[in-house]
Amino acid sequence: MITAANSLKERSLLGLKDLSRHEIESILDRAMYWESQSEKRTPVLESKFVANMFFENSTRTRFSFEMAQKRLGAQVLNFAAAASSVAKGESIYDTVRTIESMGIDAGVIRLKPAGVLQHLAEHVQVPLINAGDGNNEHPTQALLDLFTMRKAFGELKGLSVSIVGDIVQSRVARSNLWALQKFGADVRFCAPASMQAPELAEHAPYVTMEEALQADVVMMLRVQLERHAEGVLKSPEQYREQYGLTEERAAKLNKNTIIMHPAPVNRNVEIDDAVVESPQSRIFPQMVNGVPIRMAVMERAMK
Amino acid sequence: MITAANSLKERSLLGLKDLSRHEIESILDRAMYWESQSEKRTPVLESKFVANMFFENSTRTRFSFEMAQKRLGAQVLNFAAAASSVAKGESIYDTVRTIESMGIDAGVIRLKPAGVLQHLAEHVQVPLINAGDGNNEHPTQALLDLFTMRKAFGELKGLSVSIVGDIVQSRVARSNLWALQKFGADVRFCAPASMQAPELAEHAPYVTMEEALQADVVMMLRVQLERHAEGVLKSPEQYREQYGLTEERAAKLNKNTIIMHPAPVNRNVEIDDAVVESPQSRIFPQMVNGVPIRMAVMERAMK
Amino acid sequence: MITAANSLKERSLLGLKDLSRHEIESILDRAMYWESQSEKRTPVLESKFVANMFFENSTRTRFSFEMAQKRLGAQVLNFAAAASSVAKGESIYDTVRTIESMGIDAGVIRLKPAGVLQHLAEHVQVPLINAGDGNNEHPTQALLDLFTMRKAFGELKGLSVSIVGDIVQSRVARSNLWALQKFGADVRFCAPASMQAPELAEHAPYVTMEEALQADVVMMLRVQLERHAEGVLKSPEQYREQYGLTEERAAKLNKNTIIMHPAPVNRNVEIDDAVVESPQSRIFPQMVNGVPIRMAVMERAMK
Repeated sequence: MITAANSLKERSLLGLKDLSRHEIESILDRAMYWESQSEKRTPVLESKFVANMFFENSTRTRFSFEMAQKRLGAQVLNFAAAASSVAKGESIYDTVRTIESMGIDAGVIRLKPAGVLQHLAEHVQVPLINAGDGNNEHPTQALLDLFTMRKAFGELKGLSVSIVGDIVQSRVARSNLWALQKFGADVRFCAPASMQAPELAEHAPYVTMEEALQADVVMMLRVQLERHAEGVLKSPEQYREQYGLTEERAAKLNKNTIIMHPAPVNRNVEIDDAVVESPQSRIFPQMVNGVPIRMAVMERAMK
Repeated sequence: MITAANSLKERSLLGLKDLSRHEIESILDRAMYWESQSEKRTPVLESKFVANMFFENSTRTRFSFEMAQKRLGAQVLNFAAAASSVAKGESIYDTVRTIESMGIDAGVIRLKPAGVLQHLAEHVQVPLINAGDGNNEHPTQALLDLFTMRKAFGELKGLSVSIVGDIVQSRVARSNLWALQKFGADVRFCAPASMQAPELAEHAPYVTMEEALQADVVMMLRVQLERHAEGVLKSPEQYREQYGLTEERAAKLNKNTIIMHPAPVNRNVEIDDAVVESPQSRIFPQMVNGVPIRMAVMERAMK
Repeated sequence: MITAANSLKERSLLGLKDLSRHEIESILDRAMYWESQSEKRTPVLESKFVANMFFENSTRTRFSFEMAQKRLGAQVLNFAAAASSVAKGESIYDTVRTIESMGIDAGVIRLKPAGVLQHLAEHVQVPLINAGDGNNEHPTQALLDLFTMRKAFGELKGLSVSIVGDIVQSRVARSNLWALQKFGADVRFCAPASMQAPELAEHAPYVTMEEALQADVVMMLRVQLERHAEGVLKSPEQYREQYGLTEERAAKLNKNTIIMHPAPVNRNVEIDDAVVESPQSRIFPQMVNGVPIRMAVMERAMK
C-alpha cells in the first residue's frame, strides 16, 4: 500500500544517489517521449501551481525548468532570493514553508547550504525538486547528461566517463557519479590536488589528464579559481595549460568521444573557445535535452 | 447613480480605515467562498491584466497576490523596483502612470513613502490595491487576519486583541486597529516607549506585556531593532526578555488564545522558535488565508 | 523563393535603418488593427514561447513587450541580467545561445555593447527583436513614435521633426532619423556641442533651440548629465535653461505642434513638470501606442 508520505517521496527529486536505476530509466524514457512530441504545449498540468525558488542565482536552470513547466501548461511563480525578504533575514525554511502555505503543488529549489534540502523535504507536504544544493547534488543536470550520453552511445553500460575539474565543489560530478555507476558506467575523475574530493576517492579513481582524455565522454566542469585558496593553480592560464580542454587536446580525442560541460563555460579556461561548439561537443545539445528531462521530472512530481 | 469615479473608488483598496464594516464583511464572505472551492483555477478574470508593482522588496505578499491572481486566471505582470529604471531616478508616479498607460486593469502596489498612494489613486484610472504603504496601511494583511480570527472564534465582536511590538512603524497594526474596531473588537497595544505611536493612543490603550497576554488574540509584530535609535532595547536578547512571546509566556496563555504574526518572523526575538508552529499559533494558517482573501480583493477590483 | 535565412531575417527586427518603408508601413498598419480590437486577449500565439532578455535594466520597455506578448497569448519567460549568472562572467552570446537552445520561438533583447546584436542575429536560429542596443537603434520605440505622429498628423511626409538633447548617446534619435527620412519627413537635431553625433551631421542639420521649436513635432530626449565629461553644461539647471522644454518655451509652440519624449523623463531638466501632461504632450499616449506596435512586431516574428 502506498502511503501519502511514500507517494510524496516518490514525487520529489532530491538526488540521484537514492534513486533506483529503474526510476532513473523511467524518467529518461519519459523525456524521450516528450522530446518526440511535435506540439510545443501539452497542458497536462493546467491547474497545477509550481514555485521556482532560487536562493542562488541561475539563468539556465531556472529558465529550463520554466520552459518545461510552461510546456506542460503549469502555472509558474518565480522567486529569487536577491529580490526578496530573505535579504532581511528570513530563513530559507520559513520562506519555503510560507510559499508552500500559499497552495503550490510542487517546488523547485536551489540553495547553497548543504543538508538544508533534506530537512525541508521532511517538513513540507509538497514534492520538492532539487535544482542544485551546495556541492551535494544537481539531479536534473545529471539526468540530462545521462540522456545526452544515451543518445550518443545507445546505452550507458560500460561507457567510460571522465569528469575533469573542480570535483570537490561540484554537485554535477556527484550526481553523475551516483547515477552512472548504477548503470555500470566507468567513472574517473581528474583534478588538481586542491580540487579533489577525498570522500569520493573510494568511489572513483583519480587519473591523469592524459588518461582522462581516453574516454567515451569527457565532461569538463566549470572552474572557479577565486573560490580556492592560493596555490599552484592561481592563474587561469596555468589551469588551462594543465587541465583545460585545449584545441590541441581536443584534436587528439578519439573521434567518437563526446565533450560535455554543465555550463556556463569559462571560455579559454577549462575549455577552449573553438572547442565549445566543435562537432564533438554536446554542450548546447545538453541544454536542449534539459527541457524534456525537466518535463518528465515535473510531470512525475505533479501529475 | 454610480459614477465612474465612485465605481473606481469602490474597486480600489487603499486602506481599511475608510472601508465600511459592510464592505469588509463582503470581502471576508467572498474569501470564504473561494476557500471552499475545490478547483484550483477558476478563470473568471481570464482577459484581465494586473500589474504587481513592488517598490519595496517582498516575498510573501507578492507571491500571495500572484497566486490569487493566477487562480482567477488573470494575466500577471510583475515589476520590482530593484530591477528597474526607478533605480535611475524615475519617480514612482511616472512609473505607475506608465504601467497604467500600457493597459492594465488593476495595479497592486507596495511603496515606502507615506501619502504617495493616495496621490496616485487620484491620478490613475484603474483600481489600485495597497500591498503595504509605509507605516500607513496594509489592508489585505488585516483582512486575512480578521478572516483568521473569524475562523477561530466565529465572530469578531467582543474579541480582545493584543498587538505587541513595533506599533509606530507598523502598517499591520494600523489596518487591524481600524478594521477590528468597526466590528466591536477590543484592541490594545503593547510596546516599549520608543515603539509606541502617540497618534494612536486615543484609539487604543497601551497595556503591559502581562495584560497583553490576557487576550483572545495575541498578535506579535516583526521588530526591526536596527530602525530604532539607541535606547534601552538595543539588543535582541533584551527585547525578547521584555516583549518576546517566549515559550514560558506562551505556556501561560489561555488555551483558546491564538497567536498571530504577519511574518516574516524573527525567531527568538519577538517570538520563540518553538512557539511559531505550536498548536495555538495561526502563523502559517494566516498565510494560507491570504490567498482566498486576495482572490476576493482582486475579483472585486477587476470583475 | 524564400529561404529559411531570409525568412528569419524578415521576422527579426534589429533596426529601422535596413527596413524598407513598405515594411515599416505594414507594421504601423497592423498596429492600427490591434489598437482597434476591443478584445484584450487574442491568443494567436498561444503555443509560442518568447524570452525577454534584458542585459540592461528597463521598466517600461520590458513591460510593454510583455503586455503585447500576453495579449497575443504567447508564453513569456523573462530574464534580467542582474538576477542571473551573467553576473558570474557568462557572456551575452552564451546566454542567448543557451536560451535559444531551450526552445524559444523568438527573443527580445536589450543590451549595452554596440555591434553585439548583429553578431548574435547571425548565430541564432530564432528571430530577435531589438529592445535597445547601446546607442545604435531602438526600433520599436521609433515605430511607436511614428505611429503617434501619424495619428496626430495623418501622414509623415513633409512633417518637420526636431529631436532635442543627447543625440550622441541616443538610439531613439537614430532609429527615428532612419525611419522618418524614409517617409520624407524633415528631421533636425538640436544639442549642445558635447552631445552632438558627428557621424549623423551629414544626415540631418543641427539647429538652434529657437529653430527646433518651430516644428510639427518636438521630441525631447532624456539627458544623463552624469555620462558626460565636465563641460559647460554640468548642472541640470543650466541644461534646462539652454535646452529644456520649459513652460515658457512650450507656451510659444505652434498650437498644432506635439511634444514627445521616449521616457523616462527627468522632470524639470529636459522638460518641465507642467509640460509632461500638457494638452500638446503625447508622452503618455506614446506609451499607450507602444503596446499595439509591439503586438504587430511580435506577431510578425512568431506567427
